[in-house]
Amino acid sequence: MAETTQNAFLGGRLTITQPVQGYRAGVDPVLLAASVPAREGETALDLGCGVGVAGLCLAARVPGVAVTGLELQPDYAALARANATANGLPFEVIEGDLATMPEAIKSRRFDHVLVNPPYFDRKASRPAQHKGRETAMGEATPLALWVEMAARRAAPGGSVTFIHRAERLPDLLGHMAAHLGSLELLPLAPRRGREARLCLLRGRKEGRANFRLHAPWILHAGDEHPGDRENYTDATACVLRSGASLGFDGLAR
Amino acid sequence: MAETTQNAFLGGRLTITQPVQGYRAGVDPVLLAASVPAREGETALDLGCGVGVAGLCLAARVPGVAVTGLELQPDYAALARANATANGLPFEVIEGDLATMPEAIKSRRFDHVLVNPPYFDRKASRPAQHKGRETAMGEATPLALWVEMAARRAAPGGSVTFIHRAERLPDLLGHMAAHLGSLELLPLAPRRGREARLCLLRGRKEGRANFRLHAPWILHAGDEHPGDRENYTDATACVLRSGASLGFDGLAR
Repeated sequence: MAETTQNAFLGGRLTITQPVQGYRAGVDPVLLAASVPAREGETALDLGCGVGVAGLCLAARVPGVAVTGLELQPDYAALARANATANGLPFEVIEGDLATMPEAIKSRRFDHVLVNPPYFDRKASRPAQHKGRETAMGEATPLALWVEMAARRAAPGGSVTFIHRAERLPDLLGHMAAHLGSLELLPLAPRRGREARLCLLRGRKEGRANFRLHAPWILHAGDEHPGDRENYTDATACVLRSGASLGFDGLAR
Repeated sequence: MAETTQNAFLGGRLTITQPVQGYRAGVDPVLLAASVPAREGETALDLGCGVGVAGLCLAARVPGVAVTGLELQPDYAALARANATANGLPFEVIEGDLATMPEAIKSRRFDHVLVNPPYFDRKASRPAQHKGRETAMGEATPLALWVEMAARRAAPGGSVTFIHRAERLPDLLGHMAAHLGSLELLPLAPRRGREARLCLLRGRKEGRANFRLHAPWILHAGDEHPGDRENYTDATACVLRSGASLGFDGLAR
């Protein structure tokens, strides 16, 4: 892998090495990991883990959770492994393609599956110039397959959580409903009163509860962006900096 | 039809006669009608119009819109006709079944279609004792058929708007996505920060825009219900009492 940088996540609790070029993790995998309802002694699978930000955030936030990551691109998988070692966290990384799931994952079920899939449907947008970035961001693997593979790896009663662009919700919800029950949608809004750009969608393997549409999680305070100053809401800052959990029923909005 | 009552809607602009027993219109058809983006000179179809509250609210709110209603139950259709006459509004009521659409509707396309379908899936809940109420509230006609028939009757570029319980969103969104584009979801939350119990979902015939997930419309002010005092938000009170429109992009929340 070419040039890398080191970036701090969770207020410095995690140091992540990632390529300068290509896909670079932002807040999305941190939000995703914070929403996973994992407890000590449970297992989790980070499907398409990249350099490991979501999986490592989960491992850092909830002690005693054994996290496994699957990553297609060898360079990213190697960085994910190095990041796990550097941070001293229980994160096992397996290299492989979710379409032909490696035996080490195929033979197992997990209490929680978390997925931050490539966001952009290439039927409707332009490919990125950088190949690694394109694989991480373009939708070479159909969303339907991500959902099916995630659902298959969940244990009975286990959770499957996706973060995705709100505009993909009709497809995502359709695929989730085909494989999972007890679906819950948490819109992520940039500010109060604005439309959601991202959403978290969770289902339960063999769940039978009704669908729930939660009040949006609000990312930024105020009505306008105050120049170059950061203005996350307090609840979001706690998630990003202090490893707080992001409850679907959270009241801090 | 047995005993009826007269109820005021839109701050007294509409007087609606409806049966004492059976399905009685609440605020849902008023909210639905307020969200339809109709303009003078356009046509609209209220599919399953009952005693005509949604269609008549639309006709009262936007002068010069010709509204047609389809109603299966003869008693309700007769009341809808009487309500149109009593209020002096352009609302034509046709009796018939949407599964075998009457020729008077089948031969036409409408600029807007609005639907407040029966809410309760009878696979998962108990039938109402009263037959008229059961037909109006139980889901004898599958939601898929309501959506397909609504979409078929919309003119190219025309809008189709449903109001439904939030828990039916996965099904509703799936059916809408199969027939319509430019889908937009407006959650209706009882209070700020609470999960949505109802939602408005709109699509456009032949629409090609991305799905949008709007900030919730907030029905009631404050965190708790203040005893028996009404406490709609100002924006909701304007919709219910003054015939204001309910914009999906509204800022009053």
